[in-house]
Amino acid sequence: MGVMRIGHINIRVLDMDAARHHYENVIGLLYVDEDPQGNVYLKGWDEWDKYSVILSPAARAGMNHIAYKVESDADLDGFRARISDYGVDVEECAAGALRDCGRSLRFELPSGHVMYLYAEKSFVGKSVGTVNPDPWPDGLKGAGVHWLDHALLMCELDPENGVNKVAEATAFMEKVLDFKLTEQVMAGPDGDVQAATWLTRTSTPHDIAFVGGPVKGFHHCAFYLEDWSDVLKSADVMGKNKVKIDITPQRHGITRGGTIYFFDPSGNRNETFAGLGYLGQPDMPVITWTEDELGRGIFYHTGELNEAFTEVYTEGA
Amino acid sequence: MGVMRIGHINIRVLDMDAARHHYENVIGLLYVDEDPQGNVYLKGWDEWDKYSVILSPAARAGMNHIAYKVESDADLDGFRARISDYGVDVEECAAGALRDCGRSLRFELPSGHVMYLYAEKSFVGKSVGTVNPDPWPDGLKGAGVHWLDHALLMCELDPENGVNKVAEATAFMEKVLDFKLTEQVMAGPDGDVQAATWLTRTSTPHDIAFVGGPVKGFHHCAFYLEDWSDVLKSADVMGKNKVKIDITPQRHGITRGGTIYFFDPSGNRNETFAGLGYLGQPDMPVITWTEDELGRGIFYHTGELNEAFTEVYTEGA
Amino acid sequence: MGVMRIGHINIRVLDMDAARHHYENVIGLLYVDEDPQGNVYLKGWDEWDKYSVILSPAARAGMNHIAYKVESDADLDGFRARISDYGVDVEECAAGALRDCGRSLRFELPSGHVMYLYAEKSFVGKSVGTVNPDPWPDGLKGAGVHWLDHALLMCELDPENGVNKVAEATAFMEKVLDFKLTEQVMAGPDGDVQAATWLTRTSTPHDIAFVGGPVKGFHHCAFYLEDWSDVLKSADVMGKNKVKIDITPQRHGITRGGTIYFFDPSGNRNETFAGLGYLGQPDMPVITWTEDELGRGIFYHTGELNEAFTEVYTEGA
Amino acid sequence: MGVMRIGHINIRVLDMDAARHHYENVIGLLYVDEDPQGNVYLKGWDEWDKYSVILSPAARAGMNHIAYKVESDADLDGFRARISDYGVDVEECAAGALRDCGRSLRFELPSGHVMYLYAEKSFVGKSVGTVNPDPWPDGLKGAGVHWLDHALLMCELDPENGVNKVAEATAFMEKVLDFKLTEQVMAGPDGDVQAATWLTRTSTPHDIAFVGGPVKGFHHCAFYLEDWSDVLKSADVMGKNKVKIDITPQRHGITRGGTIYFFDPSGNRNETFAGLGYLGQPDMPVITWTEDELGRGIFYHTGELNEAFTEVYTEGA
Repeated sequence: MGVMRIGHINIRVLDMDAARHHYENVIGLLYVDEDPQGNVYLKGWDEWDKYSVILSPAARAGMNHIAYKVESDADLDGFRARISDYGVDVEECAAGALRDCGRSLRFELPSGHVMYLYAEKSFVGKSVGTVNPDPWPDGLKGAGVHWLDHALLMCELDPENGVNKVAEATAFMEKVLDFKLTEQVMAGPDGDVQAATWLTRTSTPHDIAFVGGPVKGFHHCAFYLEDWSDVLKSADVMGKNKVKIDITPQRHGITRGGTIYFFDPSGNRNETFAGLGYLGQPDMPVITWTEDELGRGIFYHTGELNEAFTEVYTEGA
Repeated sequence: MGVMRIGHINIRVLDMDAARHHYENVIGLLYVDEDPQGNVYLKGWDEWDKYSVILSPAARAGMNHIAYKVESDADLDGFRARISDYGVDVEECAAGALRDCGRSLRFELPSGHVMYLYAEKSFVGKSVGTVNPDPWPDGLKGAGVHWLDHALLMCELDPENGVNKVAEATAFMEKVLDFKLTEQVMAGPDGDVQAATWLTRTSTPHDIAFVGGPVKGFHHCAFYLEDWSDVLKSADVMGKNKVKIDITPQRHGITRGGTIYFFDPSGNRNETFAGLGYLGQPDMPVITWTEDELGRGIFYHTGELNEAFTEVYTEGA
Repeated sequence: MGVMRIGHINIRVLDMDAARHHYENVIGLLYVDEDPQGNVYLKGWDEWDKYSVILSPAARAGMNHIAYKVESDADLDGFRARISDYGVDVEECAAGALRDCGRSLRFELPSGHVMYLYAEKSFVGKSVGTVNPDPWPDGLKGAGVHWLDHALLMCELDPENGVNKVAEATAFMEKVLDFKLTEQVMAGPDGDVQAATWLTRTSTPHDIAFVGGPVKGFHHCAFYLEDWSDVLKSADVMGKNKVKIDITPQRHGITRGGTIYFFDPSGNRNETFAGLGYLGQPDMPVITWTEDELGRGIFYHTGELNEAFTEVYTEGA
Repeated sequence: MGVMRIGHINIRVLDMDAARHHYENVIGLLYVDEDPQGNVYLKGWDEWDKYSVILSPAARAGMNHIAYKVESDADLDGFRARISDYGVDVEECAAGALRDCGRSLRFELPSGHVMYLYAEKSFVGKSVGTVNPDPWPDGLKGAGVHWLDHALLMCELDPENGVNKVAEATAFMEKVLDFKLTEQVMAGPDGDVQAATWLTRTSTPHDIAFVGGPVKGFHHCAFYLEDWSDVLKSADVMGKNKVKIDITPQRHGITRGGTIYFFDPSGNRNETFAGLGYLGQPDMPVITWTEDELGRGIFYHTGELNEAFTEVYTEGA
């Protein structure tokens, strides 16, 4: 019961042709649909629901909203009450407000990011089917990602002025949506400022994450790869396509995952991510990174944040 | 709420010194404790609870019991009622009945295997700690497994005589313990005999599995590896130690995982297993394998079951 | 100066359409040419010479000949004299006798297998070109092998009757063609029977190998993969295509390489092979495997030879 | 006949204890000897000759000399004549001038770097032995490198003033020592300035390389890893040991190899390198990188050189 996983993300792109080339031929998502407003719907080959990415034509890059799927329609009623009780405005949207989805809840996280919850989305099925399936389908393009895995949202953080939207968003996710905090960065002179958090509902290390920054923003969304060898392949694909890479293959200290970061043609950051031995569980002790080891937490090998990682982002709504 | 994951397995071994060498130096579990009865307690470096394997000296190999951890103590009351209502005898055991655990429920699956549920076990912590942890600890031995991942229990299957303990155990896990069926083998002339099943509570492909056989038995327990390269390392370790290998590195069709099977010195089958891109979810469509493709389901590369895999097992209690 | 590497192999196939599907779509070689006799010429994407495999339609499977490329045309004169001086008949064939090749030497190894040496073959180039090349080309099919790596020839071995064609072929390769013996299996009650050998001219572990058997035969030819992760991919491809697999992913003790063995539709054995840390050198001490450890030498993980490996082969000419 | 491979490198270090910790516990070389002058001799576990690295205490970091092993003692006479005939001063040193080596030739490359050739060095053997060896030994430390693989020497390059020591050193290696040019960077407005070169005697992509810079310098020496998964492990080891990393896991366009770069405690750059599908051969067409694609040639994923890579180096003698 409750939230199952990330359902989709709605990304704003400046040039739809360039964006489609990127998300389809480079990242390897599959085109599934387009609506009259010109929004394009994509899915990973290993996802069964109709779409996990919506590309929306826009004048400025960024994220419009992020959506999570709950287990049953009845869960929506429960969450509507809990969200409202927490003091957050919540709107129930009719079926179809999210294309091919049932009714949904729309609300803003304390960080200002727009989130939807929904219980139903049209079923399409994995590319490999459900009877005697192959482990992977033929004809994959580019990095051939499995699924949309998580997103990292940038939240306003200004502890000297008492502003910590990371902590507020985190508390909301824990208390209202029953997410489990897996890892956190504690900053500030007294180490009491929750400056970045990773939370999960599955047993992966994170289904959503928050990081402090100057304003509300969209840091990245991540797509799943099978393992470390696919991280190399994914980076090779970026090289072949001359995609702007932010971070070459490396292991995160936080989550232990294998990763590369790069940018879509509109400047939105993407990640391809491979889980490398991690079982998120409700009783797993929270892992804490101190501010002086934050670099190693993010990029375990160098132990240093590159400037772009913290300073480049797109809009959070 | 509910069952979180596999908690531990109690394995019977004929020669404790040989068993300890195997589970500690070859598989790479850590010794944590021993009780006056000579039972030895082991854990994986990445587990935080005190133990996940109990080795018990015995005259015959096999499994004594398997235990799953539930999220809260209150869950035990709910499960006690549900199990009993389902018509299965259930006994509440006092704290300490399972060493270093809180109170527990003891019952037999419809297949006859003994299962415990418990909510509390002494906390030891991962070898890498919780503050600025490294991704893996120094000094790992052998295959250096992360954690106990799952077990496969052999259930009596004789459809001509109306006996199908696979289906009965599966129904129990789904209906009473809220496990999700991820994959199944449907056999028989009409394809209506559920001959093997895989079920999960985490988002991994399976936390327990059942396979039909002549009698109740213990097929194997599996330990988790980081990725496919560690499957090679694990197999190399078996070669170096002249461990009897059942199946060399291969991919399962079912679960897609990378695997090797081998035997402990008592003849109990072990697996080291690496997840390779799979997200178990309540709404994931059940994957069905037909009997003619069962070989490929188990061993995707050859598409053939070896005789040992189906005919060699140890006792289920 | 001298022999550089394996140049090509001429394989007999029973059904050309099935063979082309196998070598092109499954193994991933590229079609380059066909001659009026119906022979089909193929190359790996990473090879620069015109072809490395010739498929010849035939009533019985097997190998017609194997060819090695020497560094310069003048080398052929030197080898012609050395071969002849060694007491082996050698024939000089005009340019074009081997399609698109310069003049060549044709002779039988002491084991009876037909070998050619040549210095020139038409240049086609790697698929990635020579200016700012990508590390791999787009559009690879199946296992996407790099190049023909080596072959294993079966030689008559009957030590009780004083027959050891393995030792004779090996001595010829060492003394006449300047190959370096890297590894050997010593069998017999006194451990003095050279029962299998691996020899190289490059710094890979082997460019040719010989194994004892009841008659002259063709054991397998091997194609090169980038690394262990491609061994998994290659095995997945075999599973997807329902290719008959002999040996699933495993490490050789001999050569340390990662490997799978499988059969082409005619019954010829193929290998896809990834080097895993080995530098063949003239001064590297010869590695010796004793007969009791032969199984581990061939298949390091199980330490056991499967029956098929030693008993199934095709014709050596 | 001729040069076989890199034999050893003599590296200057500022703090021997720190250097030994780095080369032994982090890189994973084995200590073999120490001389009265305080030079420390190390080898890789997979090397059979006594040492491949000499650490020399010094006030400034850098490389004292690099040595290559030739196949036979008689080769030294031939090379002495050829070097001298080329107009380069060459000195014959008595056995023992290089510790535990036979007589050697000492000369300066046209770039000014000191090189030795020798034919004999005391034999120690691989850690896994020569009879039924395991694929890797127990007890490896850190990155557990196999062998010293190659070095990159910085050569003065000032084409506007007619200075190109890269081209001069390359011509010497090709014409006098029979190295094969595998790849080159052509720079300058007309693309006719050979600004970096990679040369080989084995069938690996390079046994030595030269890159242009402001002065003679030592860019890095590289140690061999089994495959891409060991590149991750190596980078993890650097992270665990807080070693200063220059470049995290990435693929070279040039050589296609998997790589990380990092610094020893004295500031000398090291690389751990895994070959990923490359067969150097005398007839392989030379691969040329144009200046505008140099970044991609060095770092295929980003396509950009980092500043440190070109500007940080230690002394070449």
